[in-house]
Amino acid sequence: MSSTRDIDALIEMMAKLPGLGPRSARRAVLQLIRKRALQMEPLADLMTSVAATACECRNCGNIGTQPVCDICLSNERATGQICVVEDVGDLWAMERSGVFKGRYHVLGGTLSALDAIGPETLRIPKLSERVESEEVTEVILALNATVDGLTTAHYIADQLDGRCRITSLAQGVPIGGELDYLDDGTITAALNARREV
Amino acid sequence: MSSTRDIDALIEMMAKLPGLGPRSARRAVLQLIRKRALQMEPLADLMTSVAATACECRNCGNIGTQPVCDICLSNERATGQICVVEDVGDLWAMERSGVFKGRYHVLGGTLSALDAIGPETLRIPKLSERVESEEVTEVILALNATVDGLTTAHYIADQLDGRCRITSLAQGVPIGGELDYLDDGTITAALNARREV
Repeated sequence: MSSTRDIDALIEMMAKLPGLGPRSARRAVLQLIRKRALQMEPLADLMTSVAATACECRNCGNIGTQPVCDICLSNERATGQICVVEDVGDLWAMERSGVFKGRYHVLGGTLSALDAIGPETLRIPKLSERVESEEVTEVILALNATVDGLTTAHYIADQLDGRCRITSLAQGVPIGGELDYLDDGTITAALNARREV
Repeated sequence: MSSTRDIDALIEMMAKLPGLGPRSARRAVLQLIRKRALQMEPLADLMTSVAATACECRNCGNIGTQPVCDICLSNERATGQICVVEDVGDLWAMERSGVFKGRYHVLGGTLSALDAIGPETLRIPKLSERVESEEVTEVILALNATVDGLTTAHYIADQLDGRCRITSLAQGVPIGGELDYLDDGTITAALNARREV
């Protein structure tokens, strides 16, 4: 590397971002330096400002810039439904589909015996508290279909049993999916959950 | 998107970087927010500092933080050889190989009739000037093996003809390359430039 220390350090930091390796980090930094006023300075300012203001919503765990997030504050969201997700990224994915009009609860991970992650770490007690205080009628478990996700879903269903309706996302063939490329587990789930046309 | 304005804007800016799309920009921003003190704040500070200090070397066009870059200032680099590259990224690639010990000249692009890029835009006059003032004995053309790259190489060779030795990178089979996957042009070039074992 012939560039000076700060530029090298910037490339190294950028290479740590998910989706960027050393090569693409170098390309990104070169582009940033070329488009300094248009890209680099605004990006640096935004990062500084987000780093200073971003925080977890104390109600649902979503990331925002206020102590309670926009979704929890909104009057337009149904109060009776809570959609439980693993992560803020999953919450954003649900929001992009635009179909869910209730509120969320972000666990911040899944139960994992190996990593010693128990219910206390995961905001599960807070979920239980919200089910009471917000008069929730349905908890929708939108956890990833992994072993840890399923374990966590079972645990939460156990905890909330009898206090409200508990549902989970349907499993089956994804839209546009071709049977030939699907794994056996998905085909089995789709067959078991088949419905009348 | 449920996150607030700054976070959305940050995701949008990040998605404009080469190598990142909307999805990976979201993942990157989430990771940055999680590792705020370790990643986001240092990254923002570095960007601000690089945006303020980065500049082109007025001699060779390399990017650095001083008016003349480290390579041009170094006493350890041979003065008689100049390696001509299209772009700072190419200069960095040459430096990583560590094999070239001379100095560089960054053109900042290639000649292109379609995009109306002529020799004046490309620091070619400056190269010609350096060949005189630095008593250069060899100019190595390390331009990309594209049509525009080859045109530019020919133009420079014409300009400097008779004033110093002019060479270009060898063309042939890349190290680790399999013949079966190489294009016809490369195989032809490698065959034409074959040498005694």
